[in-house]
Amino acid sequence: MRYLILIEYRGSRYGGWQRQLNALTVQEVLEEKISIFLKEKISLTASGRTDAGVHALGQAAHFDTESAFESDRFLKSVNSMLPDDIAVLSIREVPADFHARYTAKRKTYEYKLYVSPFIKPLKNGFAARVSPPVNVELMRYVADFLIGEHDFTAFSSAGGSAKSGVRTIYSLDIEENGEDIIIRVDGNGFLYNMVRIIVGTLVEVGKGKIPPENVIHMLETGNRALGGKTYPAEGLYLKSVYYDKSDY
Amino acid sequence: MRYLILIEYRGSRYGGWQRQLNALTVQEVLEEKISIFLKEKISLTASGRTDAGVHALGQAAHFDTESAFESDRFLKSVNSMLPDDIAVLSIREVPADFHARYTAKRKTYEYKLYVSPFIKPLKNGFAARVSPPVNVELMRYVADFLIGEHDFTAFSSAGGSAKSGVRTIYSLDIEENGEDIIIRVDGNGFLYNMVRIIVGTLVEVGKGKIPPENVIHMLETGNRALGGKTYPAEGLYLKSVYYDKSDY
Repeated sequence: MRYLILIEYRGSRYGGWQRQLNALTVQEVLEEKISIFLKEKISLTASGRTDAGVHALGQAAHFDTESAFESDRFLKSVNSMLPDDIAVLSIREVPADFHARYTAKRKTYEYKLYVSPFIKPLKNGFAARVSPPVNVELMRYVADFLIGEHDFTAFSSAGGSAKSGVRTIYSLDIEENGEDIIIRVDGNGFLYNMVRIIVGTLVEVGKGKIPPENVIHMLETGNRALGGKTYPAEGLYLKSVYYDKSDY
Repeated sequence: MRYLILIEYRGSRYGGWQRQLNALTVQEVLEEKISIFLKEKISLTASGRTDAGVHALGQAAHFDTESAFESDRFLKSVNSMLPDDIAVLSIREVPADFHARYTAKRKTYEYKLYVSPFIKPLKNGFAARVSPPVNVELMRYVADFLIGEHDFTAFSSAGGSAKSGVRTIYSLDIEENGEDIIIRVDGNGFLYNMVRIIVGTLVEVGKGKIPPENVIHMLETGNRALGGKTYPAEGLYLKSVYYDKSDY
């Protein structure tokens, strides 16, 4: 039987989602606790990796098991074993051909910023700081050019595994509330560091460090050097992964 | 010259506001860094203590100094010396008879709760968890009895220094947003642990563990035993301290 779980985590303490030799990862911790509960070694396949320090409000992952169990008992028992910075939010059975990564249709990320001349203690670790001033209207103007199907190679870091840089962004909204800015990106897939480079580029345009037209040139030329820096992991949240209803 | 500073801090790592022998406190860290900046030993007088683990979005404190300095340089320099969980938000000169504690007219606290069967990683440390179900309408109904001038002795812990238990609550609002609940209390002063006992009592009424009429009996009799438990520090935020405009 195949199961889909939704997971929330605070990424600060982890070397990202994916198992690796030299750092504690979210996948490793979850697989260990779920395997203890099922008394059977399972492996998780996520909708995608998240990098070291990135948070998730709704990461999705599937696993296969022959064990029978009740969902309520699974959630209660697994969550009681997990550390306070990882939680399984829900579990449901899915068809055997469901795949957390390959059947994912859309993903939403949120990036949290705050505009302040110094670190705000209650936001530190959960949002990235931008020193004032920043022109949010200009950020919105430039963001609109990224919506649609484009080759986002210029908005990705070396080291990703994607063969093509073509992705579709369905929406890219910038919400401003006092000193807080939330950038919400909804797309059919994301290249390595794509959201963090989009955010860094929009912020540097908003601060007048990069000319607005660079964003268009980046899409045309694939030249990463025209963009802003890769913004820090602490502001990034994997919000939701969407599947077709017919997939499960 | 007397100065008023507004301070934000994440309380998790500290033994509260006030200097003490066996724990690191917010007052101690701030006094040290400000004294370094001014090259003069200063002491801070706050609007009131906050307990170990309690957060502040706008704690107020005053200090006296003979040194001359620019506000911008003060903020930049002191904040660069402070750890990431304490920040000075603003500084202004006030009259010599201004007193952060005695001239304070009103204070607002917020208490953050979330209703969930298990710990949410991204709220942990910044809000207290309530297991479902909880009747928020009943909490609101009961909260209304606390508004106005009352003897709040039953809503305080032993160990406070107040001579009288009479305080005025101007407003007590309960805001619900999905699984999040914010309890906002505005009053002319608060007894030791008063907000955390109000919250604990309201929650236990909302969960059916305490009969609603206990709240009225508590005001009438001063009997702490009729109330709910003192809710944890991690959900409590000192939001604002208000002074008459004529005070500064």
